[in-house]
Amino acid sequence: MHRLAVPSLITGLVAGVVLTLAASAVVNRTSDKDGSADVAEQVDPGTPTTVILLIGDGMDDSMITAARAYALGADGRFALDGLPFTGAMTTHDLKVGPGPDYEIAYVSDSAASASAWSTGMKTVDGRLSQGPSTSADVPGEDYATVLEAFRDAGRLTGNVSTAEITDATPGAAASHINSRTCQGPDDMASCPTALRSAGGRGSIAEQLVDARVDVLLGGGSGRYTQTLEDGSGSVLAHATTTQGYRPVTTAAELDAVTDLQDGPVLGLFTPSNMTPTYLPLVATPPPGAGSATTRCQRADRGTQPDLAAMTTKAIALLDNPDGFFLQVESAMIDKQEHSLDACGAIGDVEALDAAVAVALDHQRTHPDTLVIVTGDHAQSTQIVASVRDGIQTATLQSADGDPLTLAYSTGLGVANHTGTQIRVAAVGPGASAVTGVIDQTDLFDVMLTGTGADSAGGAPPR
Amino acid sequence: MHRLAVPSLITGLVAGVVLTLAASAVVNRTSDKDGSADVAEQVDPGTPTTVILLIGDGMDDSMITAARAYALGADGRFALDGLPFTGAMTTHDLKVGPGPDYEIAYVSDSAASASAWSTGMKTVDGRLSQGPSTSADVPGEDYATVLEAFRDAGRLTGNVSTAEITDATPGAAASHINSRTCQGPDDMASCPTALRSAGGRGSIAEQLVDARVDVLLGGGSGRYTQTLEDGSGSVLAHATTTQGYRPVTTAAELDAVTDLQDGPVLGLFTPSNMTPTYLPLVATPPPGAGSATTRCQRADRGTQPDLAAMTTKAIALLDNPDGFFLQVESAMIDKQEHSLDACGAIGDVEALDAAVAVALDHQRTHPDTLVIVTGDHAQSTQIVASVRDGIQTATLQSADGDPLTLAYSTGLGVANHTGTQIRVAAVGPGASAVTGVIDQTDLFDVMLTGTGADSAGGAPPR
Repeated sequence: MHRLAVPSLITGLVAGVVLTLAASAVVNRTSDKDGSADVAEQVDPGTPTTVILLIGDGMDDSMITAARAYALGADGRFALDGLPFTGAMTTHDLKVGPGPDYEIAYVSDSAASASAWSTGMKTVDGRLSQGPSTSADVPGEDYATVLEAFRDAGRLTGNVSTAEITDATPGAAASHINSRTCQGPDDMASCPTALRSAGGRGSIAEQLVDARVDVLLGGGSGRYTQTLEDGSGSVLAHATTTQGYRPVTTAAELDAVTDLQDGPVLGLFTPSNMTPTYLPLVATPPPGAGSATTRCQRADRGTQPDLAAMTTKAIALLDNPDGFFLQVESAMIDKQEHSLDACGAIGDVEALDAAVAVALDHQRTHPDTLVIVTGDHAQSTQIVASVRDGIQTATLQSADGDPLTLAYSTGLGVANHTGTQIRVAAVGPGASAVTGVIDQTDLFDVMLTGTGADSAGGAPPR
Repeated sequence: MHRLAVPSLITGLVAGVVLTLAASAVVNRTSDKDGSADVAEQVDPGTPTTVILLIGDGMDDSMITAARAYALGADGRFALDGLPFTGAMTTHDLKVGPGPDYEIAYVSDSAASASAWSTGMKTVDGRLSQGPSTSADVPGEDYATVLEAFRDAGRLTGNVSTAEITDATPGAAASHINSRTCQGPDDMASCPTALRSAGGRGSIAEQLVDARVDVLLGGGSGRYTQTLEDGSGSVLAHATTTQGYRPVTTAAELDAVTDLQDGPVLGLFTPSNMTPTYLPLVATPPPGAGSATTRCQRADRGTQPDLAAMTTKAIALLDNPDGFFLQVESAMIDKQEHSLDACGAIGDVEALDAAVAVALDHQRTHPDTLVIVTGDHAQSTQIVASVRDGIQTATLQSADGDPLTLAYSTGLGVANHTGTQIRVAAVGPGASAVTGVIDQTDLFDVMLTGTGADSAGGAPPR
């Protein structure tokens, strides 16, 4: 519901002689957007000591708008809405084939997207921080990542996701492999050259451990209980013995970790992906799922910490005068969109926003922190008034109390990514660089430029 | 095609021991986005003398991305991409019903959208610069518009569109009526209280004339050849005799007008909407229209001026030391999206961008000019990699030389508006107010605040 701004103050005769327009002009002021001074104050040409990158997987403007209407109402504002500098970010990637002029793919997957900001370079679907090549099974060239550059410059690093920590987005931060499917030692069918026996870096699970990311939090313990190729033990055992990782498995155990003095932290809270905030509401063909009175139901997440709790702990553990790099992903937005699950996707935009609020709190007291909030690619969710026959929809009651209908039209049973540019927002030193139109490879520069880490990038030690 | 940035400089061994990462880090610089200083320079807290608002009807981020890929390639940049301040704009409107708490409609039409920025107030679908009410046929309260405020402050005004000039977007700038359908005296079925015989303001065509907008350019001569309700002559005759309008009907005639000394200008170049830049390519069910080698074909637009020419002329006529207000709409983007016409929509994004370039040229030499570029609501066009059965698609060869596929899924035969927030960009005094998330009603304040026009708004004289 929308209450008109003091309409009684407007003295107007529809077809009459007099309109009291001065009064109308005053009433018309629905907000004060004369923000020139604010924006000028927010321009910080300095260089960040700390960079926190928060990613909503599959979170495009349509998903933000839908989640906002559901959670806060159409005129509500998320924490992520309030960052002072905003722009649009293109997300196209490449297709495998003969190079160096690779064909452009106008719709990217999460692997190529995450690789783009992690390395500053375009690659092909399914690939993690490795360049394009003639076919999916042929590895490309390894590219150094932002996380590795920070680490090699002596700074602390963190990598948090609600997916398996070996999934595409967190994987690209600190692993280099030709296929995102090669998450654990048992999953290497598509990555023969990455096998340790072939002289490779091993699976994504192994590479994240070998990269010695200081704080790794997410799902995916099922990849870490797998046995290493040489039979010497599990990936988890490898993590604890070779890198000193402290495993944690519940929110309470994570709470109990108070510093990194006793080694890096490996929090794996579920065997595969973590549980979305809300129970599913899956879109169906007309008349569609849900109704004008449907509200999403909170899921039982057991002992799993939520994204805000993981972000809070990661920042607390990483906070130090030399700064840190932290990537935080709300992963289940995209995954639930793939499943046509309106509530699942909306809830994990809310979860991301709670994590953004945590990061912004840190930024306010640590102004040398650059916070960036964006997605990795667009998805198919559309806010609609009506749809053609056969299109799956879900209707919810918005926070305004009014019906909000979402449609999923790019796939039957599975909705797919789309290629529109997506929102990017930032605050802190260098934040104004995200205004206008950038490509996701530009984020690499925005995160590294002037940090001292940019000339010291490195790859995982072998 | 995408050429990798000097890949030969990267010395990398995929599974090997050494990665020359300093070199990689340098190569990775795909652009210089350290724009802090630039942005700071662009913050202008002053107040604009002139405001130019350029609207792409139905132009959301998806349409911009698609048109850019087609016209310039994925890494190309439109003039509209380069404005220094960018944000997201919400576009929801209201539903007719009992007030004052009107139900929110999460998907707006062009009438309510244009009314929102024209008046700073929300209204219902189909209504022009008039508030909501209990039903579509009951008029709401008239709200003063930005154009009227500028006019009543003694400044010149212009209103340009490639639709009929009586269509929703140009109509909202200077008319007040309960239904957008009431474009001419013969079209008043839905607007009984607006009839002159009922004491109303008459049709939209009449109201635009009575508002004495200094430069009116677009299509829609068919509305102006209609006879006034009292039988005294055509709307066009009314325009020339009562307001001194000079009619022009071709690009050459428009060229010949060099100033406003002899009265305001009424350019009507087609009986209804003007011709889109490109011939149609209408999406079809699988395998879809077009192919990887399809390029759009330029339409024969006869003696019609294009949008850039109309914008150039409007600015030339309106330019004066006291400033002016000019609204420019590329209207056929949305209309061709409704028709699933990929080429039509793309071409008229290009046409808008050419008009934006004209406005930016003026802004550079007249820095007291605020230029705003945005859409009015989102549409259904999606950039896809693959689609489900039954979804209509059109494939084109992009400027990169690669296949670009667009899908239209919200309607069968007719694609519909969607509710996602859309891009807004600005340059000039007060431009930074568009950053973050604003609502389209906020544009009213952005355009008026501090101009001296805001307290002098007025309605059309009767």
